[in-house]
Order: sequence, then structure tokens, then C-alpha cells
Amino acid sequence: MSLTVVGSVAFDALETPFGKREKVLGGAATHFALSAGFFTDVNAVGVVGGDFGDEEWAVFKRHSINTDDIEIVPGGKTFFWSGRYDYDMNTAHTLDTQLNVFETFEPKLSENSKRAKFLFLANILPMLQKQVREQCLAADFVAMDTMNFWITSMKEAVIDTLKVVDCVIINDAEARQLADEPNIHKAAKIIMNYGLKGLVIKRGENGATLFTKDSLFSVPAYPLESVFDPTGAGDTFAGGFMGYLSSQGDVNDATLRRAMIYGSVMASFNVEKFGTERVDALDYPEINGRFRDFKRMTHFDEVPFEKSSSAS
Amino acid sequence: MSLTVVGSVAFDALETPFGKREKVLGGAATHFALSAGFFTDVNAVGVVGGDFGDEEWAVFKRHSINTDDIEIVPGGKTFFWSGRYDYDMNTAHTLDTQLNVFETFEPKLSENSKRAKFLFLANILPMLQKQVREQCLAADFVAMDTMNFWITSMKEAVIDTLKVVDCVIINDAEARQLADEPNIHKAAKIIMNYGLKGLVIKRGENGATLFTKDSLFSVPAYPLESVFDPTGAGDTFAGGFMGYLSSQGDVNDATLRRAMIYGSVMASFNVEKFGTERVDALDYPEINGRFRDFKRMTHFDEVPFEKSSSAS
Repeated sequence: MSLTVVGSVAFDALETPFGKREKVLGGAATHFALSAGFFTDVNAVGVVGGDFGDEEWAVFKRHSINTDDIEIVPGGKTFFWSGRYDYDMNTAHTLDTQLNVFETFEPKLSENSKRAKFLFLANILPMLQKQVREQCLAADFVAMDTMNFWITSMKEAVIDTLKVVDCVIINDAEARQLADEPNIHKAAKIIMNYGLKGLVIKRGENGATLFTKDSLFSVPAYPLESVFDPTGAGDTFAGGFMGYLSSQGDVNDATLRRAMIYGSVMASFNVEKFGTERVDALDYPEINGRFRDFKRMTHFDEVPFEKSSSAS
Repeated sequence: MSLTVVGSVAFDALETPFGKREKVLGGAATHFALSAGFFTDVNAVGVVGGDFGDEEWAVFKRHSINTDDIEIVPGGKTFFWSGRYDYDMNTAHTLDTQLNVFETFEPKLSENSKRAKFLFLANILPMLQKQVREQCLAADFVAMDTMNFWITSMKEAVIDTLKVVDCVIINDAEARQLADEPNIHKAAKIIMNYGLKGLVIKRGENGATLFTKDSLFSVPAYPLESVFDPTGAGDTFAGGFMGYLSSQGDVNDATLRRAMIYGSVMASFNVEKFGTERVDALDYPEINGRFRDFKRMTHFDEVPFEKSSSAS
């Protein structure tokens, strides 16, 4: 199976209480592809400028990401985002956004990218997400992200796109805003009713929840004593989630649940260093070790209480 | 095994977006005892006024709670609390507090209450908690609650009490304040270092986490489309937690994990109606049904990822 992702490839400048970086590799498609690449064959679709150098391409190459559909605009500059996090690492304060070549991004998919069985539409203009989905006729399982900016400015377009995908992966504030409903379980029901097979609601340090038609599955966040840089955590989660599903080739209750764990595992590594540094250096024993940690963190024996069997 | 609880017995006046009640049975010891009573023999220690009537005593009687150590001050009035919740049900707005007979509360424990193997010190003056603990020499497992008011005004006294108990059950804001540390995992480590065997951090709609010396166990909250009245949810959780442990007679990793689930189950029922109404009417099939729901919400098969076994 293979997996195609469409989204931003960027340079980030980051400031956190633990340090700063002038220019690290970033972007939703980058974080997603690196994470998914541990599980499956990934095609990345995006655009960069002539300033995108050998060092950056080498990161994709190391993880065998197919970058044929990352367009290069020789005279242009790569999308640049600059942000700061204070001790409350849940909120990014944007210092600067330069869309550059990303402003006029029109995803161009090769036949190879279109043939993928799994597709992830990272956070871009909803109309573009829909166009890409309609080009990928072989895709059996399509997931999308979005953000408050699009929900505020073009909610109808977001919902139009939502109707042609199988799964939505968003955070709790976005879910509440999209459904116009403060209770997260009612909001999930409203969003699911657009015809989704799955809805993943990410809740940062409080974990994530998967809603399907007949069930709900909750995962806590991995216990970290310090979150170094949360940039890209959501896309890294989505990469682990979709990458694992693609590796198994079958989307069912059991694979979806394990996909939630692998998503959480990958996101937990991502935040331990700046940019893509930690995920770039990851290996399989580390990934499976943390998968086992999640089992230990959540397992209990199903022993119903019986009044007569009590020790009293 | 039996379980003794020391804390408030009260009348509450409640206003929520779903309705209001002028006078319902409330108080930490009440919510705790009713919840724990489903699992074990409970002795409640508290004080009420002459206004505490047959209807109130009948609730304790129905659940076979031993009320011998609830002192009656014939000329006095029972502790009264009045609060309002807005649509954000996480925050109670106190409208009125009349301590009445609770202001000079001095817990008087009978030999029977002192003989209990399990003891819960609900949220009262920390010095009183410590005095009670020191009277209960037979208690093998002692847990306590506290609140921001005591942590702010007499942190040393809270810590003194903390040093003579086995387990602390508090919410995340209280844990951060007590440890003076914003990261919850670092805060937990600091609090555990006072010599605890367990620390339960409650996170409302985000569930609860149990910290022990070598492990961590996380439980999501039960998915509720509406929280009717959150008053007493924390004490109801503690009642399910301690009640289950007492019923099993043994505190180990497996019983502690199931105690976390029974605590969450009981709290999820408590918030469905005003005051003690829902827990008062509960039965065992309902309790075990929701216990099974928790298993379904959190279970996944432990299948490590192997690159070679993928479908690609």
C-alpha cells in the first residue's frame, strides 16, 4: 500500500523557553511524511523555492519519501513561519508568516501519487483539498485536517470537503467551532453525520479520542516532563495514524485503535526536540517501546464487581 | 474490610443551566459514603444540625452507611452551600457558604470507626485530617483530599498531613499549586516524594491519572453529552476508588487500576442528576455495564509494528 500527502513544506523559526532556532525544516507535509515513512511508502505533494537545499532534501531521502511531486520554483522562496511558545506550550504565538511560493500552490499529482490507496489532505485551502481528493480515484481511505482560520472564513467550503473524505483529524477547539456546539460528544456526532467513518479529536496534553459510528476510543497523551517544541505534533500524529493504517492495508476497529496509539507515539517523540530533529533520528525499537508503554499506561483487567466476592 | 470517611455533610442549593434545587443532600462525606457503600461497609464521621431530617437519614440507611459517628447538634443548623454553574460546568460559582455546625467540627471517632482498615480524609482543615489519621492506628491505607484554599493559606499543614497518608486524590490545578510546578508529571513526582504510595490527579472531562512509584495509569472520562450537576463528582470518584479497594482488601497495581475505573464509573453517574439523586438510585448491573464500557473505550491489542509484516 502507499500513502499520498498534500500540504505545506516550510522553513520555521522557533522560540521556546528551551532555546531558539533560526531556520529548521517544517511544514505539515514534512512532519506528516517523516512520521508516516516509518510505516509505509509515502508520496509527498507540495511546493518549495530555490532556497530549499541539499540538507533538506536529504531528510526526505533518508526516510525514502517520494518527493517527485514536490514542485521547485527556482526563483521563489519557500514558505516561512516564525513562532514563539511561552511556558504554556499549548499556544503558538505567530511572529511572522511569509507564504512565498505556497501562496499560489496548485498541487500537481503524478499518476503514482494518484494511485495511492491512502490519502491525507493536510491543512490547506479547503477547495484545493477537495480538488486533490477528486483526482485520487483509487484512494480508499482519505483523511483531512483543517484549522480555525478556514472554519471562520469559509465554513461551507470546509464542510463540502468534509463530505468527500472518510476521516477528519482536528483538535477539540476546531471540532467545537465546526459543529457550533460546546459539548465535545455532541459536536462529534454532528461532524460524523456528514458521512464520516472516523473522527479523531486531538486534545494536546490530554490525549486524543477516535469516534466511529458505533464506538469511541480514548488515548492519553504520553507523559512527558518537558515539551520542547510542539510544532508539527498534530501532523506527526496524523502521519503515524495514516502510515500505520496504510501498512496494514485494512481499516477496521482493531487497526484504527492501534493507529491512534502509533499516532500518539510519533507525536510524543516529535515534541522532544526542535522541528524534525527527533523523528528524523528515530528507530523501530524506540517506536515499539513507547507503543508498549501506552499499553501499560491504559491496561486493566476486566473483572466485574460482585458484592458476594468482596473481602468484607 | 471496612472504610471510614471523615468530612462534611451538608445541604446544597444548586443552579445549573438545566434547572435548580433549593435544598438537596450534599457534602463530601455524603457523596463519598453513598458511592463507597456500593462496594464495602462504610462508617461516616461528620456533624449535622437539628434540621437534618428523616428524609436525609433515610438516604444513608438505604445504603447501609453506619452513621453512628455523625454527631447531631440539636439547636444547630447543618452546613449549607449554595452554588451556580454556567455552561462551562467545570467551574462552580459559590453564591453562599454557611458553615453553621461545621465551623467547630471536631471529629469524634468510635472504636468501630477507628478499627477500619481503609480511611478517607475528605476536604477539611488539614490539622483535623492529621488528628483523625493518628487516631486510626488500624488503617492500612489512608487517602486524603484537600483544596486550593488550604494550599494557599496553610501549605505547611497540608504537607504535614500528606506525610502521614498513603494516597492523595486531588485535581490537576491543586497538584500544580501544591508542587509549585506547572508540568503535571514533574508536579506528581514532587508530591510522590513526600512518601506516598499513590497519587490520583483528577482532570474533570479529561479523565484521571494514577501515579505510583513505578507506574502511571490513565483513564479517560466517561463520554457524557450533558453534565447535569458536577457537585460531588470528586468525592463520588474517591468513594468508588476507596470503596473498591476496601472490598478487595488488597492494594496492588491491579486493584488500584480497577479502583480508578470504578471511581470514574461512579463519578460519571453522579453528574447525571442533582445532588445524590442518581447514585442513590443506582444498581450493580448499571455499575458493571459502565465498567465494561470503560474497557471498550480503552482496549487495543498489543501488536508491535514490524516493517516486514506490513501489507506494502
